[in-house]
Amino acid sequence: MEALVIHAAGDLRVETVETPALGTGQLRVRVRCGGICGSDLHYYQHGGFGVVRVKEPMVLGHEVAGVVEAVGAALQGFAVGDRVAISPSRPCGLCRYCQQGLQNHCLDMRYYGSAMRTPHVQGAFRQEIVIEPHQAHKLADSVSDHEGAMAEPLSVALHAVNRAGPLLGKRVLVTGCGPIGALLIVAARRAGATQIVATDVAPFTLRKALAVGADEALNVAEDPQALARFSADKGHFDVLLEASGNARALVGAFDALRPRGIIVQVGLGGEMTLPVNTIVAKEFDLRGAFRFHEEFATAVALLNSGLVDVKPLISATMPYRDASRAFALAADRSQAMKVLLSFD
Amino acid sequence: MEALVIHAAGDLRVETVETPALGTGQLRVRVRCGGICGSDLHYYQHGGFGVVRVKEPMVLGHEVAGVVEAVGAALQGFAVGDRVAISPSRPCGLCRYCQQGLQNHCLDMRYYGSAMRTPHVQGAFRQEIVIEPHQAHKLADSVSDHEGAMAEPLSVALHAVNRAGPLLGKRVLVTGCGPIGALLIVAARRAGATQIVATDVAPFTLRKALAVGADEALNVAEDPQALARFSADKGHFDVLLEASGNARALVGAFDALRPRGIIVQVGLGGEMTLPVNTIVAKEFDLRGAFRFHEEFATAVALLNSGLVDVKPLISATMPYRDASRAFALAADRSQAMKVLLSFD
Amino acid sequence: MEALVIHAAGDLRVETVETPALGTGQLRVRVRCGGICGSDLHYYQHGGFGVVRVKEPMVLGHEVAGVVEAVGAALQGFAVGDRVAISPSRPCGLCRYCQQGLQNHCLDMRYYGSAMRTPHVQGAFRQEIVIEPHQAHKLADSVSDHEGAMAEPLSVALHAVNRAGPLLGKRVLVTGCGPIGALLIVAARRAGATQIVATDVAPFTLRKALAVGADEALNVAEDPQALARFSADKGHFDVLLEASGNARALVGAFDALRPRGIIVQVGLGGEMTLPVNTIVAKEFDLRGAFRFHEEFATAVALLNSGLVDVKPLISATMPYRDASRAFALAADRSQAMKVLLSFD
Amino acid sequence: MEALVIHAAGDLRVETVETPALGTGQLRVRVRCGGICGSDLHYYQHGGFGVVRVKEPMVLGHEVAGVVEAVGAALQGFAVGDRVAISPSRPCGLCRYCQQGLQNHCLDMRYYGSAMRTPHVQGAFRQEIVIEPHQAHKLADSVSDHEGAMAEPLSVALHAVNRAGPLLGKRVLVTGCGPIGALLIVAARRAGATQIVATDVAPFTLRKALAVGADEALNVAEDPQALARFSADKGHFDVLLEASGNARALVGAFDALRPRGIIVQVGLGGEMTLPVNTIVAKEFDLRGAFRFHEEFATAVALLNSGLVDVKPLISATMPYRDASRAFALAADRSQAMKVLLSFD
Repeated sequence: MEALVIHAAGDLRVETVETPALGTGQLRVRVRCGGICGSDLHYYQHGGFGVVRVKEPMVLGHEVAGVVEAVGAALQGFAVGDRVAISPSRPCGLCRYCQQGLQNHCLDMRYYGSAMRTPHVQGAFRQEIVIEPHQAHKLADSVSDHEGAMAEPLSVALHAVNRAGPLLGKRVLVTGCGPIGALLIVAARRAGATQIVATDVAPFTLRKALAVGADEALNVAEDPQALARFSADKGHFDVLLEASGNARALVGAFDALRPRGIIVQVGLGGEMTLPVNTIVAKEFDLRGAFRFHEEFATAVALLNSGLVDVKPLISATMPYRDASRAFALAADRSQAMKVLLSFD
Repeated sequence: MEALVIHAAGDLRVETVETPALGTGQLRVRVRCGGICGSDLHYYQHGGFGVVRVKEPMVLGHEVAGVVEAVGAALQGFAVGDRVAISPSRPCGLCRYCQQGLQNHCLDMRYYGSAMRTPHVQGAFRQEIVIEPHQAHKLADSVSDHEGAMAEPLSVALHAVNRAGPLLGKRVLVTGCGPIGALLIVAARRAGATQIVATDVAPFTLRKALAVGADEALNVAEDPQALARFSADKGHFDVLLEASGNARALVGAFDALRPRGIIVQVGLGGEMTLPVNTIVAKEFDLRGAFRFHEEFATAVALLNSGLVDVKPLISATMPYRDASRAFALAADRSQAMKVLLSFD
Repeated sequence: MEALVIHAAGDLRVETVETPALGTGQLRVRVRCGGICGSDLHYYQHGGFGVVRVKEPMVLGHEVAGVVEAVGAALQGFAVGDRVAISPSRPCGLCRYCQQGLQNHCLDMRYYGSAMRTPHVQGAFRQEIVIEPHQAHKLADSVSDHEGAMAEPLSVALHAVNRAGPLLGKRVLVTGCGPIGALLIVAARRAGATQIVATDVAPFTLRKALAVGADEALNVAEDPQALARFSADKGHFDVLLEASGNARALVGAFDALRPRGIIVQVGLGGEMTLPVNTIVAKEFDLRGAFRFHEEFATAVALLNSGLVDVKPLISATMPYRDASRAFALAADRSQAMKVLLSFD
Repeated sequence: MEALVIHAAGDLRVETVETPALGTGQLRVRVRCGGICGSDLHYYQHGGFGVVRVKEPMVLGHEVAGVVEAVGAALQGFAVGDRVAISPSRPCGLCRYCQQGLQNHCLDMRYYGSAMRTPHVQGAFRQEIVIEPHQAHKLADSVSDHEGAMAEPLSVALHAVNRAGPLLGKRVLVTGCGPIGALLIVAARRAGATQIVATDVAPFTLRKALAVGADEALNVAEDPQALARFSADKGHFDVLLEASGNARALVGAFDALRPRGIIVQVGLGGEMTLPVNTIVAKEFDLRGAFRFHEEFATAVALLNSGLVDVKPLISATMPYRDASRAFALAADRSQAMKVLLSFD
């Protein structure tokens, strides 16, 4: 079996790796396609991000879908041929946070393709994978493998929207329209937002924002004052979903956000200098959102029922052996949102 | 100008009433159509409900839409010809509850067509009405007057859904599929519920439940055990939206509702005998939902943007001079959901 | 070792039972004292409650404190001589609800001295007990064994108060002033309620309510209209903590409870006939409260720091061999709140 | 009548001002004492803070108590001689935010002694003042005028604690132990926190923190690693109440704060550079807290009932004619917490 292994920045190799033995309560899945995430790009381009660095060879990838090819002897409820989206999240279930229902903060998390701990957790950009049944979420016939691979980033967006509280009837601003920002639009629309305005600096992503349901898409590079008309009476929007990881986007939205406005910060961007007095005086509520837990099942349920449409966000599907070209395309926000790798 | 005036049970008359003078900050609206609500039916059939009785002649009606025909001298933002849905809710704005943002509990509420206080508050089944600007919500060209008249019951449903908290990814059971129950399905779907199961005893309303988005519609008259398959592991549904006002529907859902399940009671049904020990042991959260406030604006925004579709629920439109036939039809759940009166 | 074993209604025996072997990760505790709970009384007086019946001999008791007399070989953090309050709650940790942090709804709960499942879960009215370390909460030197035995009912009260949401600055009504009602007063005061009014029908318990911090204690047997002065402007209290399990107490408080008032139902009382229209129109929020989870640690922390005082509620301590006299006293609300058994 | 009028930084004068006429629904109050707040100090020392500058003569002061000396003809419920704490907050009651119950975000707020708007809102450091009845909160005989003047800063602390959500059983870290930080300790203790750790850089304020109920008080100037022992398992504290307005205090607490920890930022400190990635990854919830609304009534209720004790925080009372000495003392955290002015 082959896998995509990162060795260092710029050093991504197709290598042969072993398929683990199938446990009696496990599933073996033939991976069909996998999406390239921003963190995969960071490993590839920079060898990591912040203090997280690649210190040993690691299979990349955590957004995958495939087909069950073997079912452990003791396992009920799955059959060979089932098509599944695979959750890359494997919390321990026993620690303080897992026992509080906060599995995304597990003290012993093993998340696919992550160098946060050493030894690194090997990822899912591989032809075959052995998984726990709680990771496997069956896809309806109406949902393609490609859409199935979108379940993971959709889960991230759903979790962020859950962090915002109820959105029915709310006015929502989304800053940053890459894949996660665009999926935030999808999720906010699904959750009942009555107005969604999106901002970005790239015409391509702004068009995609409109394609997935934003009411307006504003280019704040071309018009840095584009949000000024939303600042009357201390601000217009109830909720800001921040996906750019850029301090200018975050701070630039403060005047347009009403007192008691809720900010969900999803984008990672390191240190930011913020006017904390404004957060105090307008009593903003700035909430981090990190990964997901129960939202993976929600993502697959929404895909299966056709209640969301992620297809406009799939820009290309390329063979895993063309990984470097695929990664280059995935990094280019002038022409690509999500780029998928095919493992067939 | 003519209006529909209830004098006593069964005694509903078309009468000439005066049009009030237009204040400088008010609007005069030509009413185009109005929906017959359950409370209108109760006044007509029984002269009231519970302790609320018709004690003097009262114009019925509180679900209306129309077109602005005069704008007070001091009022900005409206023009003759604007088509508007009219909120029947006129809280005082000053009392303890209004100042807490709980206008639906106003100590001095004047709600159209209500005999809760004496003198009764005259209603909106009339050809012309003078209103405050906060009551007028402009309709988009794409929204018919008929749909506009649905804004009020939709507001009731949205308020009930807001009382439930976030529904994104939730499993929702709706008991009772009359107009409010059906609109709860619309609202719950819009708010992101991943599964909606509806129950009723009438095949007609169950078909309508499916038409507006329920995943399943179960006839609990034909099969009283229809919910039994949802009772494993202490229950399946996260939320119960109860619109029947029937104790059997409410209690019959307890086994299908998971621990910590949220029940929003919208249906009015007088005294009910409940197994309170189950509420305690499963830690249910039973919340009343009554009328609405900011949800009227949300309802119109959702109609204007096409994010909800209420057309399947409009069963008929009849001239107001045919009121008794219209009321009879509105009362017949074997063939009618919402029946509208035309005031043209 | 001896234990108190219920065989049937009225048939409570002191019997010799075996002490289980100490596992390497467990503690053996010499039980010093244990409180008689309402459920113990129900087993003794009626052989159970509702559908829960004693079907086989069962050691009673779940409110106990003692001293560690042996520490399993693999266990850190405990020493022989440690004085501990023992949580009777042993959720599985693995089921759907445990993984959501709702351990009190565990699908495989083993709660001491409970006939809810068969075989029954043996209780803690015994001289020695082997427990898991998560059940043992160390008592400060300043806290007596007797107070330690109050940790369990205090946990129930804290959980109910947590179900009510924040109480800082709130006006709270407590109906029913038995041991749980009185502890609700203690907990509500600790949580910052600015006004606490208590009702009951027994002068003795009302005096105890005042002793633990109620601002007023009203005898609704003597004056059924005692709450009438709280009904102006749709009601006075923000929160009702209902511990009587009596429908008259619950419904009798409705007029005194403001719109959007929160009711936490703790008392068990079977079927109740409720004016559901009032719940709807005033938008009450009626929440069940059942047992506890993390609140046991809170209870012990509050006792250890002296932030609550439960001593006024301990009416008597009697030898376990005098169980029938102790149970009779515990059932007499004219002279007893909590009655403790001594196992020394 | 005399008042304390700020003209510019360092230019604070005792001047004669007119007493306004008493309206029929108003109260005239003889001011007895008033507390010097941080914002008063900023006006005195720097002529303002941030963009808020003194542009015209302004009476300072907003923390006052006094005695009613005249009651408007149409006003019920007050009598000459009533001792009252006076809320400085006068929201319009009509704007969008007032109607949502968010009066502290009123679009037309007139808050005593504030240069936020021009003309400035004149303050309450004056011998006589005419107020609206909603501003007057009666003090019990057991509460001194001095304690009454603490109602305003106590309200700020209560509001911040309310922003944190329920604290019963929570572990709370308070950074910054000036008057507001110390009152946060008082409020958090009253709300049921089981552990309160305070940090500051001044031995005097740390002693006061212990005096008002902190369990531990850590000097982070002497030991910058004082919080390190709270960082195991991703952090110990559930809630951080930040009153220093210092980025080092805020960021320095991140490792000690558990995932999903709640941060209430009360201290004003301008721009801060924050590791936003940590906020994201640990899903912190950073909430601004600004002034108060219903908490003023809560503050007076708590003082009246003896449920809080603010006396340890009153460092000195000085005649208003000695204002410059009083302000100098108030600015000195090595020997003063709250300094009061006497207007007798």
